[in-house]
Amino acid sequence: MNTFSVKAYGAETKDSDLIEMNINRREVTPNDVEIEILYCGVCHSDLHTARNDWGGSMYPAVPGHEIVGKITKVGSNVSKFRIGDLAGVGCLVDSCQTCDSCRQDLEQYCENGSIGTYNGKDKHIGGHTFGGYSQKVVVDQNFVLNIPKNLDLAAVAPLLCAGITTWSPLRHWKVGPGSKVAVVGLGGLGHMAIKLAKGLGAEVTLFSRSPEKTADAKELGADDVVISTDSDQMKSVKGKFDVIIDTVPYIHDINPYITTLNINGTHVLVGYLGGLEPILNTVPLILGRKSVAGSLIGGIAETQEMLDFCGEHNIVSDIEMIKMQDINNAYERMLKSDVKYRFVIDMQSL
Amino acid sequence: MNTFSVKAYGAETKDSDLIEMNINRREVTPNDVEIEILYCGVCHSDLHTARNDWGGSMYPAVPGHEIVGKITKVGSNVSKFRIGDLAGVGCLVDSCQTCDSCRQDLEQYCENGSIGTYNGKDKHIGGHTFGGYSQKVVVDQNFVLNIPKNLDLAAVAPLLCAGITTWSPLRHWKVGPGSKVAVVGLGGLGHMAIKLAKGLGAEVTLFSRSPEKTADAKELGADDVVISTDSDQMKSVKGKFDVIIDTVPYIHDINPYITTLNINGTHVLVGYLGGLEPILNTVPLILGRKSVAGSLIGGIAETQEMLDFCGEHNIVSDIEMIKMQDINNAYERMLKSDVKYRFVIDMQSL
Repeated sequence: MNTFSVKAYGAETKDSDLIEMNINRREVTPNDVEIEILYCGVCHSDLHTARNDWGGSMYPAVPGHEIVGKITKVGSNVSKFRIGDLAGVGCLVDSCQTCDSCRQDLEQYCENGSIGTYNGKDKHIGGHTFGGYSQKVVVDQNFVLNIPKNLDLAAVAPLLCAGITTWSPLRHWKVGPGSKVAVVGLGGLGHMAIKLAKGLGAEVTLFSRSPEKTADAKELGADDVVISTDSDQMKSVKGKFDVIIDTVPYIHDINPYITTLNINGTHVLVGYLGGLEPILNTVPLILGRKSVAGSLIGGIAETQEMLDFCGEHNIVSDIEMIKMQDINNAYERMLKSDVKYRFVIDMQSL
Repeated sequence: MNTFSVKAYGAETKDSDLIEMNINRREVTPNDVEIEILYCGVCHSDLHTARNDWGGSMYPAVPGHEIVGKITKVGSNVSKFRIGDLAGVGCLVDSCQTCDSCRQDLEQYCENGSIGTYNGKDKHIGGHTFGGYSQKVVVDQNFVLNIPKNLDLAAVAPLLCAGITTWSPLRHWKVGPGSKVAVVGLGGLGHMAIKLAKGLGAEVTLFSRSPEKTADAKELGADDVVISTDSDQMKSVKGKFDVIIDTVPYIHDINPYITTLNINGTHVLVGYLGGLEPILNTVPLILGRKSVAGSLIGGIAETQEMLDFCGEHNIVSDIEMIKMQDINNAYERMLKSDVKYRFVIDMQSL
């Protein structure tokens, strides 16, 4: 298969900074589109993969799965896109398309393993996939999204991961007018959860440990902020919420949040992969038919639905633009939660 | 308020055997019915309450919340029942009737606290409520169930707790033809879960640690039995189940069962009140949008629905009949799971 070389930014080992490098992309096959990447959001997963925090990272690691750009080439079978169209690519670039999950538009749960935009198995040219910290990407049209024209393109990029990751559970657990939603954590995911839940018509509360986030949360659309370390404030929302979107990516005690769920309420974990410690108490689950659930990004059709919704409701991410060369510093700032609320790389800088 | 005395069986302290005693029942008020108790099922909760295993037991403790009998008196406003009708009483004898939960027929989750059939606050004559190990009980007609006439009355008694406790989650999580249901544990609840899930048209698998239970489970209607300690058998059902009804009442590791859930599957705890140890791993929850939930008995309307369903499908509990005087020995046998599958007391023996 014919390939071409593009500039990219990646880590050569788990201990090295990200540096400029060249990677190969395939020439478009009949179902592919080639996208010139204009902006790429910076997700915590990027950092974890570059540093092999979860194990299994393949090197060189070129992260980036919040990709927006312009289509520069289309394969002979491509009907959904034309050269010059705006396009987006999120966390997935392929899946089996035939299993039960794929047939239900749940490619993120593909039973045969979906292919990540980076650190996945590249079935076209071998080796592993490289993400959006690069000049161009070539992707099967079925995994490419249409971008609403009315939105700030750079601020759309984080919708492709932070947006869909919070949208999918909001939709799955049927959030709408009248729903009471709480969001745990005000980072890239949390700030999108507030905007999207609010856009869906819900009453939205932010749980935070930091009183100084109150004004920001309300500006983002939160109706209320509850300081999770304040037992009186926690008591005041006992039994209130239908859905809690928990975006916290590190180990934390979810038991106090369970008490704030209404009968039939669900606490959805979207950020933390690991064991639940302190141990989860089943008593409030049983006495209120409550659930603890997890949710992973979203399917392609659902991602398009979210982008269209954002276009209609004028919802984008709050971003801080950086140059590609600033990425290592941005990672350090991300670790300190020093970003409101998502870094986006201006790929012109590469 | 006028009362009358009836014979009962109860524990005077947490360390004492159950003995014969006299308790007071109120004379029927306009909304009450008086029931001559013919049979009363023996639930694990009876034993835990008699022995104060959960704390909060009030003495004398007269257990029993799987009550069936014949109506012997009705209050002036009673329209639903007539003298001579068969009637049932389950775990609840009252609730506020006005909160959101009660208005949704979810009296078991009454926000103001439902009143248990025993060990609840008796708002009519003060003190605490006494259960079905007695000759008669007087209950508000709204908490009394109609009993299908075609069923073996003694074998109906366990439906009032073991039946509804498994029916409610099967219905809430929409089990029907095509559903794949697993049941953890083959006791009073587990054997009802198999019968009811099968009755609803599901494919039913029993998880058990005991290969010798296979034949019994299949006789009860299970399509398959998976030995949960056999890793090959567990692997063979990876990703299979839509709903798991977990009836195990003691601490146990639920992580292996989560891997057997399909995408969107739910593991429902109905028996174990306590902390989940070993700790619950969120990874399979997130990677498959799976849930861990709890469920508590069921509402009155749902209990009637279950009884009617059992009448139509000829479903009752498998029971071993005992005399009231055998109760202390029955408790010891229950602790050793030495019963297929529910003791029922013939109240004529009192």
